Amino acid sequence: MEQYATQMDAARRGIITAQLRSAAEKERMTAEELLPLVASGRAVICANKRHACLNAQAIGSMLRTKINVNLGVSRDCKDVGTEMQKAAAAVQLGADAIMDLSSHGDTQPFRRRLVAECPAIIGTVPVYDAVIHYQRDLDTLSARDFIDVVRLHAEDGVDFMTLHCGITRDTIARLRAQGRMMNIVSRGGSLIFAWMSMTGNENPFYEYYDEILDICREYDVVISLGDACRPGCLADASDACQIDELVKLGELTRRAWAKDVQVMVEGPGHMPLDQIAANMKIQQTLCGGAPFYVLGPLVTDIAPGYDHITAAIGGSIAAANGAAFLCYVTPAEHLALPSVEDVKQGIIASKIAAHAADIAKGVRGAREIDDKMAEARCRLDWQAQWKCALDPETAQAMRAARKPEHDDTCSMCGKFCAVRSMNKALAGEHIDIL
Amino acid sequence: MEQYATQMDAARRGIITAQLRSAAEKERMTAEELLPLVASGRAVICANKRHACLNAQAIGSMLRTKINVNLGVSRDCKDVGTEMQKAAAAVQLGADAIMDLSSHGDTQPFRRRLVAECPAIIGTVPVYDAVIHYQRDLDTLSARDFIDVVRLHAEDGVDFMTLHCGITRDTIARLRAQGRMMNIVSRGGSLIFAWMSMTGNENPFYEYYDEILDICREYDVVISLGDACRPGCLADASDACQIDELVKLGELTRRAWAKDVQVMVEGPGHMPLDQIAANMKIQQTLCGGAPFYVLGPLVTDIAPGYDHITAAIGGSIAAANGAAFLCYVTPAEHLALPSVEDVKQGIIASKIAAHAADIAKGVRGAREIDDKMAEARCRLDWQAQWKCALDPETAQAMRAARKPEHDDTCSMCGKFCAVRSMNKALAGEHIDIL
Repeated sequence: MEQYATQMDAARRGIITAQLRSAAEKERMTAEELLPLVASGRAVICANKRHACLNAQAIGSMLRTKINVNLGVSRDCKDVGTEMQKAAAAVQLGADAIMDLSSHGDTQPFRRRLVAECPAIIGTVPVYDAVIHYQRDLDTLSARDFIDVVRLHAEDGVDFMTLHCGITRDTIARLRAQGRMMNIVSRGGSLIFAWMSMTGNENPFYEYYDEILDICREYDVVISLGDACRPGCLADASDACQIDELVKLGELTRRAWAKDVQVMVEGPGHMPLDQIAANMKIQQTLCGGAPFYVLGPLVTDIAPGYDHITAAIGGSIAAANGAAFLCYVTPAEHLALPSVEDVKQGIIASKIAAHAADIAKGVRGAREIDDKMAEARCRLDWQAQWKCALDPETAQAMRAARKPEHDDTCSMCGKFCAVRSMNKALAGEHIDIL
Repeated sequence: MEQYATQMDAARRGIITAQLRSAAEKERMTAEELLPLVASGRAVICANKRHACLNAQAIGSMLRTKINVNLGVSRDCKDVGTEMQKAAAAVQLGADAIMDLSSHGDTQPFRRRLVAECPAIIGTVPVYDAVIHYQRDLDTLSARDFIDVVRLHAEDGVDFMTLHCGITRDTIARLRAQGRMMNIVSRGGSLIFAWMSMTGNENPFYEYYDEILDICREYDVVISLGDACRPGCLADASDACQIDELVKLGELTRRAWAKDVQVMVEGPGHMPLDQIAANMKIQQTLCGGAPFYVLGPLVTDIAPGYDHITAAIGGSIAAANGAAFLCYVTPAEHLALPSVEDVKQGIIASKIAAHAADIAKGVRGAREIDDKMAEARCRLDWQAQWKCALDPETAQAMRAARKPEHDDTCSMCGKFCAVRSMNKALAGEHIDIL
């Protein structure tokens, strides 16, 4: 009945799918403009055929920058209902994607409810789930066990999966020879490294990549090629381990495209500010323009408790230079499981980074809301300002908590308000300051 | 008795002052390295001859990026003792400079106590104070009144003063002809614009600039040339009003240097991320490398309540591209007078921006603390991590609030901790995840 295998296959055949049309509308593009980007792999539409309630969106460097929020059932938070509420709140706050990183108990019910009820793009990391799913220690798992979890997640309707296909036995040798201050900080990457070390086998996600591609083609799962060797501190940034893995991810990207499987590539990590633009450029050349999905980058290592800010700095520069998709970072990063408030702070900071980058990139219509805010500010129209604000409740509460003496100013400047003085001066009115 | 007029004059004569020596040590430079930078105006040492307790520091694009905190007695907070406590807390948190923006009552006692007791660089904006000092409406003040307040602040021992010398009657005409979405958002700039509009006179800070230079030379006050026309929204960024004023500020910089008066130049403002680097470059060419003191830049207009983050993004990019001095922005910007907690959040965000930029610029020793943090993280040594953290109390409290099951991990990843897995794998140990 279906005329195509994946969104990429459809685009290559010139078929405009419902998902492509819907995604294009959100970008203020015609379907005809978006189609060649999907056909060439420069944009992906994460849309598992089984995710019926999906509100389809495209991800690509020339499109609005998307943001991802990590959730999941854990030892500390086992209730599926609570996690579903967090997911709904995240979408409400502007999350485009939810990654389910569940790490405890039976993970399937939450994953299935997300696919059944959540309109956001859903992602998972099957290697986390393998240990939990089988309830067996890591070294007892077989390559087949890992592949079977990939199939299980595909069947459950997951739109994209992080698969650390680029870390191999070569990586173990290189990492030992080169030395790295923080070794591997990717959780999935460290699990595969540990499994390879204990079993002596090759990375199953690399060895059986063709089989994985067949699964992804069948369900139209986007592969998010994990960066096991992303730098975990400034000192490791842009080193041979990281760039060598990126070379491999570029090769794996092309192998996926040959089977019409859509691909994103994951990136750093901790990184000095001056290296970010170069990293974005190299990813584009090595990976043929496949969308870059970055965690951070965090521009300093010394701000635990504030890594939503270090990541917002790095993320805005990354996205302005071509990253397509930002993984949120919360204030609790490096310290603890994020609270509900941490999740909110992480989302807002990521939204700021993404939006600032979209303005810089000239994404269609991105700056309209800023111009509306400026107009409202110039009129000292507070109601109109709240309508433009990223988080109107917080902004309103701050103003309300410190009431100004005069309604046409705020307590920050009072009658020293520059906007008030200028409006009067330009109207030829007398200006009273005292 | 004194052998020199200002720090610039001393440097030009090859005299190594106590302040220069002290400032150089903090930069891990020899006095001989710093001296030519001060002589040429590319670095300034803000050190009023009457500020005896000053812990002298230099400001320049090649030096550690400094940050400023705004305080001051206001209608809502009239107690000098409370403001002094805030100043001490700000210095404790890492503020290099305190600007006293008092806007209520008798402003002299707080200003004098700051100079008598505070080791940070002290700055003021005399035009704010003029209205309050004379307790007369703006249009009744004479040019002489303004100049007298400059002299008063110099006598009181202020290290640098923001003087909006670049806004002139030409600016009124240009602004009216060109049109601007947010007109002028600089408080001082709007006061001068209003005064010029009401009196028909030229800007006294421009007209009597030579007299001001004589005062600044006498006490060694650094002039911070105010940017009255800094953009107040993205739409106004890098427009003719802003750049024309910068051209004038460059001319005024050279006139000051001719009298051995030290100068900083103030800059944007609200600005799309992709315009920041260009602005830093143009300031350096137009102003001969005089230190650039920026407010923000804020990379989007739509985040009231979070402008410490929008400013951290812009500030880090600005400083990495040559800005020398960042004015902090708090979460209350555009909304209300900042609370004590807002002040703290503003300082931390500015410190992150400045530090990230210093790493990117290769400022001597800047990254050492990050490398120490990475070593501590790799050892899972939490005590050592707190010693490297920008705000150890906040970080410790977050970890403590969500106790991990195992002491060698945190509640974020538990036994999935990549650092733990890698340490075991590299040591050839068995890795248990369940």
